Amino acid sequence: MFDQLFIPHPEAEKPTPLRPRKGVIVGAGNVGLACAYSLLIQDCFDELVLQDINRQKVEGEVMDLVHGMSFINPTNLIAGTVADAGKDADIVIITAGAAQKPGESRLQLVGRNVAIFRGILQDVVTYCPAAILLIVTNPVDIMTHVALKISGFPSSRVIGSGTVLDTSRFRVLLGNRLNIDSRSVHAYIIGEHGDSEVPVWSTANIAGKKLLPKDWESLSPSEQAELTDIFIQVKN
Amino acid sequence: MFDQLFIPHPEAEKPTPLRPRKGVIVGAGNVGLACAYSLLIQDCFDELVLQDINRQKVEGEVMDLVHGMSFINPTNLIAGTVADAGKDADIVIITAGAAQKPGESRLQLVGRNVAIFRGILQDVVTYCPAAILLIVTNPVDIMTHVALKISGFPSSRVIGSGTVLDTSRFRVLLGNRLNIDSRSVHAYIIGEHGDSEVPVWSTANIAGKKLLPKDWESLSPSEQAELTDIFIQVKN
Amino acid sequence: MFDQLFIPHPEAEKPTPLRPRKGVIVGAGNVGLACAYSLLIQDCFDELVLQDINRQKVEGEVMDLVHGMSFINPTNLIAGTVADAGKDADIVIITAGAAQKPGESRLQLVGRNVAIFRGILQDVVTYCPAAILLIVTNPVDIMTHVALKISGFPSSRVIGSGTVLDTSRFRVLLGNRLNIDSRSVHAYIIGEHGDSEVPVWSTANIAGKKLLPKDWESLSPSEQAELTDIFIQVKN
Amino acid sequence: MFDQLFIPHPEAEKPTPLRPRKGVIVGAGNVGLACAYSLLIQDCFDELVLQDINRQKVEGEVMDLVHGMSFINPTNLIAGTVADAGKDADIVIITAGAAQKPGESRLQLVGRNVAIFRGILQDVVTYCPAAILLIVTNPVDIMTHVALKISGFPSSRVIGSGTVLDTSRFRVLLGNRLNIDSRSVHAYIIGEHGDSEVPVWSTANIAGKKLLPKDWESLSPSEQAELTDIFIQVKN
Repeated sequence: MFDQLFIPHPEAEKPTPLRPRKGVIVGAGNVGLACAYSLLIQDCFDELVLQDINRQKVEGEVMDLVHGMSFINPTNLIAGTVADAGKDADIVIITAGAAQKPGESRLQLVGRNVAIFRGILQDVVTYCPAAILLIVTNPVDIMTHVALKISGFPSSRVIGSGTVLDTSRFRVLLGNRLNIDSRSVHAYIIGEHGDSEVPVWSTANIAGKKLLPKDWESLSPSEQAELTDIFIQVKN
Repeated sequence: MFDQLFIPHPEAEKPTPLRPRKGVIVGAGNVGLACAYSLLIQDCFDELVLQDINRQKVEGEVMDLVHGMSFINPTNLIAGTVADAGKDADIVIITAGAAQKPGESRLQLVGRNVAIFRGILQDVVTYCPAAILLIVTNPVDIMTHVALKISGFPSSRVIGSGTVLDTSRFRVLLGNRLNIDSRSVHAYIIGEHGDSEVPVWSTANIAGKKLLPKDWESLSPSEQAELTDIFIQVKN
Repeated sequence: MFDQLFIPHPEAEKPTPLRPRKGVIVGAGNVGLACAYSLLIQDCFDELVLQDINRQKVEGEVMDLVHGMSFINPTNLIAGTVADAGKDADIVIITAGAAQKPGESRLQLVGRNVAIFRGILQDVVTYCPAAILLIVTNPVDIMTHVALKISGFPSSRVIGSGTVLDTSRFRVLLGNRLNIDSRSVHAYIIGEHGDSEVPVWSTANIAGKKLLPKDWESLSPSEQAELTDIFIQVKN
Repeated sequence: MFDQLFIPHPEAEKPTPLRPRKGVIVGAGNVGLACAYSLLIQDCFDELVLQDINRQKVEGEVMDLVHGMSFINPTNLIAGTVADAGKDADIVIITAGAAQKPGESRLQLVGRNVAIFRGILQDVVTYCPAAILLIVTNPVDIMTHVALKISGFPSSRVIGSGTVLDTSRFRVLLGNRLNIDSRSVHAYIIGEHGDSEVPVWSTANIAGKKLLPKDWESLSPSEQAELTDIFIQVKN
């Protein structure tokens, strides 16, 4: 019956839609779903595909998210895969990965995640050859390097989340300490995301004014302790 | 040391901030956290307080959310209570409630939730006497009535989430069926959220054009079956 | 000197950017500039080209707008033409047109605007064959038909602004009268934008509830006068 | 007739609205209207009052803007004054001022603008004693000082637009030169807005990396010329 509700003009041609902005999130766990939720609310894509090895779970999650779509600028959200609905995506975000088992070494975990990435990336290379890869799976810097090597994509299109969240934490904690909006704190955590990461005190600045007037050695022990304490909070 | 970074002018008076928009979410479970996440991204409040009986859990959740705050327009997010940080909030969203125990009747569940609401609302009435109450706890229409009676607030300030999500689902499913943006589908689910809710077919319209040309009885059995099927998907 | 500030890694390939969303506005008068300003603030495009026969004027306007770009999500705004910077635009908005001269008939004005459109559309057809055309130049419905015929584009890609602003006015005025958010008023002005346009009272509704309980004839003379007065305000 | 469309429940109390965010723009010339347009689209206020000595002009402009309100989150936009609709505004933006007459000295112009400010600020002090004053009228730094003295407001509540637009231009031009998003360029123009303003090369940085490796004197003449040229474009 609905087919008679809007009768197109007999001479009308089908509309030629603009090329959609398309994204794929691989892995619909907590991180993948938080990504999806945030990207939907902020209207980043015209089409967003959620892929997960647990097909039933991802279909349930998509149905839940779709049912709230009338409250926002709607995105065409689909439970699917890179190989079907995700073809020619602009960006593929990988959050999928194995969890560390008791007694498993970090190296064994990486080994299992490399195997998972091989499967995912084979499809990405085949169906989304021009996509940007955004890697979130931990250990993120290793997995980003793995994705770079497996995909053969140019380095400008393989991005890891790296220390971006650590940097955000760092700015928020410094902003709280200085009573300044964290968006005005310019400071970085660099290195590998995790135990060996490093705060770049020397370039940390607010409005171009350096946080450390001279160098680290010129600080008093109590000043060094205060800054070290902020960095420890960032890491943990 | 930081205290010398920005030395205020000796004659400067403390800035007089604009009165902040303040919200409280009571209950930091899945629903409460999804509310918080969505409200933060959409920059709805200057201050947002998360209250939960599990103080440790809510403090962890708040720390996680705060650390991403440099990516958005920051909200002052606090793990606290209506009675402390939440004083004089503009809106209090209640998602807290007990889960149904095996063998427990719906009436027994309501009884336990009424007890929980008494505690929460005593603080709301004392510390946020001008707030709008938004009730999400299930059974939502009963708990909204309970909140109205316990708080003594005027009915214009006690709102339940009611069938708002059912209505959204209804519009999304009709929009999908008609290949129309769900925001252009004007249709309502009314009644009590749950088994007895009702689709208002008679006023459902797109651009003022009614979905049902005449009345329900004029539809063929297959048309009735198709519409009934959409409503069943809304309820489940 | 700046070239040494950021030295790219020797192995790095040039980034492959996402295909940009590109728009062109033809005509940088008041209407075209208001369009540009609104589209820039709302971050609708990655690239926006402003074209005007007065090249000097459009370059000045673009420079002014560009200098505020650090306050918003920046758009690559260019003073150019459909034939150069505007190639392969997704949408071309035409606001250009002649102003009515004293003593000139409406038909003579149309004649001059048709000549202007021929020039503009020849470039659009050549350089942006897949674009959507949005016509704003008055008399808008005639010029939209002209654009359809000259361009040979399918009707699904030639859109006139028509009565969209009249409809907005209608909803705002009805919303004010009813003390309701105008976004909840569903009512349309149809027909040709201008003296002969028509309010569709029969389908005007709020939440599916019709504004007119029965038909126009059932209204009292004072009720008819009140509604007529609202429509007169819409037209003028 | 409309009064019967929505009959409130006899027991219902009037809703208690949240305290609105209210702004006033004094002066509805090009600058004031561009402010209004931008603030409306970005949904900054619940109520916005436009005041101008030309009451008829401001009423026409407000009517135009109101009629597009159904396309955005609506703001209650009013043609009025600080003394009536603008009472208890959170912020008062002053763009009003006299234009320089031929043969008039800059000092004479200031004198006339001081007289205009006296009238405006008397109302602001009386009706919006807690407001933030944002001064845009030129010469902006002098007029901001004048507003500070006349109003007697604490300096934390009297803000001039100063060199904020010059700083934006500076960042856009540097960003264009470096092929970097201008929002990542941290550089300031300070001093009085106008001929005597100064670029702060010493703290200009991208991601904490200084633009000038050493000091100005260490630059080659051609490097100095290139930077000077950028600053000259900022000023003009």
